[in-house]
Amino acid sequence: MYLTAGLHRALQRHPDKTALVDESRRLSFRDLHARVARLSAGLQRLGVRPGDRVAVLAPNRGRYVETALAVWWSGAVLNPVNTRWSEAEMVYALNDCGVRVLLIDDAFVALGRELGKKVPSLATIVHLSHQPTPQGMQNYEVLIAASDPVEDVRCAAEELSAILYTGGTTGFPKGVMLSHGNLWSSMVGRMAEVPNPADFVTLLVAPLFHVAGLGRLVGQIVVGGTCVTLPAFQPEVVLRTIEQEGITDLVMVPSMIQMLVDDPAFGRYDLSSIRRILWGAAPMALPLLERALAAFPGVEFIHAYGMTETAASVSVNRIGSAPEDRRDPRIRSAGRAGYATEIRIADLEGKVVPYGAPGEIQVRGPVVMMGYWNRPEETAQALRDGWLRTGDGGHMDAEGYLYVVDRIKDMIISGGENVYPAEVEEALGRHPAVAVSAVIGIPDEKWGEAVHAVVVLREGTQVSEEELRTHCRSSLGGYKCPKSIEFRVSLPLSAAGKVLKNELRKPYWTGM
Amino acid sequence: MYLTAGLHRALQRHPDKTALVDESRRLSFRDLHARVARLSAGLQRLGVRPGDRVAVLAPNRGRYVETALAVWWSGAVLNPVNTRWSEAEMVYALNDCGVRVLLIDDAFVALGRELGKKVPSLATIVHLSHQPTPQGMQNYEVLIAASDPVEDVRCAAEELSAILYTGGTTGFPKGVMLSHGNLWSSMVGRMAEVPNPADFVTLLVAPLFHVAGLGRLVGQIVVGGTCVTLPAFQPEVVLRTIEQEGITDLVMVPSMIQMLVDDPAFGRYDLSSIRRILWGAAPMALPLLERALAAFPGVEFIHAYGMTETAASVSVNRIGSAPEDRRDPRIRSAGRAGYATEIRIADLEGKVVPYGAPGEIQVRGPVVMMGYWNRPEETAQALRDGWLRTGDGGHMDAEGYLYVVDRIKDMIISGGENVYPAEVEEALGRHPAVAVSAVIGIPDEKWGEAVHAVVVLREGTQVSEEELRTHCRSSLGGYKCPKSIEFRVSLPLSAAGKVLKNELRKPYWTGM
Repeated sequence: MYLTAGLHRALQRHPDKTALVDESRRLSFRDLHARVARLSAGLQRLGVRPGDRVAVLAPNRGRYVETALAVWWSGAVLNPVNTRWSEAEMVYALNDCGVRVLLIDDAFVALGRELGKKVPSLATIVHLSHQPTPQGMQNYEVLIAASDPVEDVRCAAEELSAILYTGGTTGFPKGVMLSHGNLWSSMVGRMAEVPNPADFVTLLVAPLFHVAGLGRLVGQIVVGGTCVTLPAFQPEVVLRTIEQEGITDLVMVPSMIQMLVDDPAFGRYDLSSIRRILWGAAPMALPLLERALAAFPGVEFIHAYGMTETAASVSVNRIGSAPEDRRDPRIRSAGRAGYATEIRIADLEGKVVPYGAPGEIQVRGPVVMMGYWNRPEETAQALRDGWLRTGDGGHMDAEGYLYVVDRIKDMIISGGENVYPAEVEEALGRHPAVAVSAVIGIPDEKWGEAVHAVVVLREGTQVSEEELRTHCRSSLGGYKCPKSIEFRVSLPLSAAGKVLKNELRKPYWTGM
Repeated sequence: MYLTAGLHRALQRHPDKTALVDESRRLSFRDLHARVARLSAGLQRLGVRPGDRVAVLAPNRGRYVETALAVWWSGAVLNPVNTRWSEAEMVYALNDCGVRVLLIDDAFVALGRELGKKVPSLATIVHLSHQPTPQGMQNYEVLIAASDPVEDVRCAAEELSAILYTGGTTGFPKGVMLSHGNLWSSMVGRMAEVPNPADFVTLLVAPLFHVAGLGRLVGQIVVGGTCVTLPAFQPEVVLRTIEQEGITDLVMVPSMIQMLVDDPAFGRYDLSSIRRILWGAAPMALPLLERALAAFPGVEFIHAYGMTETAASVSVNRIGSAPEDRRDPRIRSAGRAGYATEIRIADLEGKVVPYGAPGEIQVRGPVVMMGYWNRPEETAQALRDGWLRTGDGGHMDAEGYLYVVDRIKDMIISGGENVYPAEVEEALGRHPAVAVSAVIGIPDEKWGEAVHAVVVLREGTQVSEEELRTHCRSSLGGYKCPKSIEFRVSLPLSAAGKVLKNELRKPYWTGM
């Protein structure tokens, strides 16, 4: 109960409606309800008790959705593992939160075996498949078939529902503890502002181990809507699925949007069912946004700003399909505080700054995490006087529109001046040869830090360092222009699609 | 914080937008925010601490709204007093929850003085007026003017926000404890299903001491919408206010709707701003509903079912403005479980009954009250296995549509057959001479109970007992038809507009 309450409502309202589509499989809410109730019984037979951590290591598939729901049905705690992590990172996180049962996809059998050896708390590994199951693991379908359905365990709003590890971009991963109330409030508060009709058919292609993907699932369960899963972001498969399943909405990071509109198959599929595209996790360069808006003419684009610690978005900027909406200068804003949040811009002493002034973005409300698992000091540092210190820098206009500028710690101080890398990256992105760039501060004897750009060029284009600097100087103050530029074929990205700036910075700062 | 978070958002988004209209006064969100912050400081100077109970005895006015918000701002607990209660009932309730400060309207000064003598916990009475204040009381406006604004106290979802006394229809009043999360979840969960645009201008004319009125206020605060208060339901004033203020929506009980459409002034005002009418608290006879639908052709009618114990509605039935919506037989339903609730129909052992079968309506979810103040036994009786036993009888169809039949304890058992008074009342209501009726069970030597009807006729009509019985027999089984009928000029009503059946039953059952 709580996050699974929507399953009961859906069973009452429309038991035969499609709940879940996973390539060949198609489950009604009646099927899903029954399988979740049986899987929950199976997990309990494996010793899972309320509060126990249950991890999943799998791409987005129907069985992932069932597992999340069955974990909540059991009153247990979901720990979705980032599939892009190294084995060492996984071992660290699974040990950190003392996972009892791990459910793994076919693709991770060998890795699962290693994890089994290195995570002492791990009692059982369940193989998420109908295929023959490797020795020493339990088969998922057998577990369901062999279990009689149980009633769900009652959970209160303040009880832990999930631990999502975050911080891949800096330092050691921390386990963000989200309560049932965190995820529920976040999704329902959002839907009170941006309606989520029950007839929405969402495409779950953003990873379920990311709060944006998991949150979207929670939202669809609340309203009794249909979820279609795809295990990977392959542009043409996404396009075909949209057409085949009549997808109404999907959550993407900017690089996914880029891949979609760049794909040669883009014009070949009927995408008219799409009503909403929600994007976030990284800034989108204006040229790409404009291309995307033009490519999906009738579609509402929503820029969501948020983080794992706030159970997904705390503000959204809705960009309607009318031409005047698309010319509004606030198209660059991250929107306004949602109904489940308050947002303020404060200095490092927690004092609110005047409108327009830069500062740290801070958040409070029922969406704010319970804390970091087993890390009282980091928790106390992040949550002060009830406010979450996001570490993001930004400012707010007089109508509450939030502008996220950059991570405070990514800010470059060059000759006493603050330089926000995002601003420089945007200027670079306006050059036709630049596909993507990352701007960092590197040590400089004279200025303390110097602005350094790492640039990936579009295929088939060429441009010199000098030409790019001249281009930047046309729109940026001199101290903001890159002192040095290096060209690469790609940037290191986190699982969430964020550039790993620490990795870029490391070679320059080692030993400093 | 929590229920007042919306004030902060509104100040960020649109400080100059009208927040509150109270006849001559018109406050922006900037004004309201400042006055609430000052009033909260004033209450704290009077000794109000987080968790303390603060009562209000007043009709719906702007100062009532400010008081509710300031109580929450202080982390204290609002106790709205039912203005229609007797002094003895008020003394009982104020003592029961140990109220520390009472805020009273001009109209209740003499009563306030009596309450001051009979409620030992009452330290201060505040006079909600700019008029000269009677000796021994504090003046509200002086309290605000003399206080510097304070920051709000942080409240968690599970903390107590209000105690609303209920049970006027039976036995002693019980204090329903609602948390911040109860009221917030109820309103936000509803708005996720039935959008509440921020440009709504609501008319708060349903009493704020009733959960429906208070909840509507909470909803408008969440979205930063405008509230217009009216201290009493005078049909022509309501109509004029709708025209003058461009009212978009209001909450009414059926008798208010009847008064509106019956009023000779009805056609004289422009009501085209109305977009939604929400009604509940008592069943509406089909002829009245049909009249109301015809009188407001473009308006969405929403029938809400709920109770104080669920922080207002748990289900709503939306009746759109299209002709086919208005012909749908489910127009009689109370709708389906909302996004913050689960509803089931169960027998008295808590076992779910099959679709269509009668039973008790039971509710769970984040809207369900914390319990009854100081009444652990009644609480344990009402909340079992996480389910609220509503005491209402009903059934549910195969698509989750709920039909509320009657209070289980109002059910009449006559010759071993169950008779739902509501069904008999509906049959009586179809006779053109019947304005309203109440059907009760009275002692009968042969049948155990006999069906007895108390009927109020329309002005200027006449009908005999025998004629009404013949009328009933045309649509009801013989055992359901009233064995006896008495005519009255009015029925005893509770503050919520419900017929006080206990009062009707009492003379028949005394000594039995």
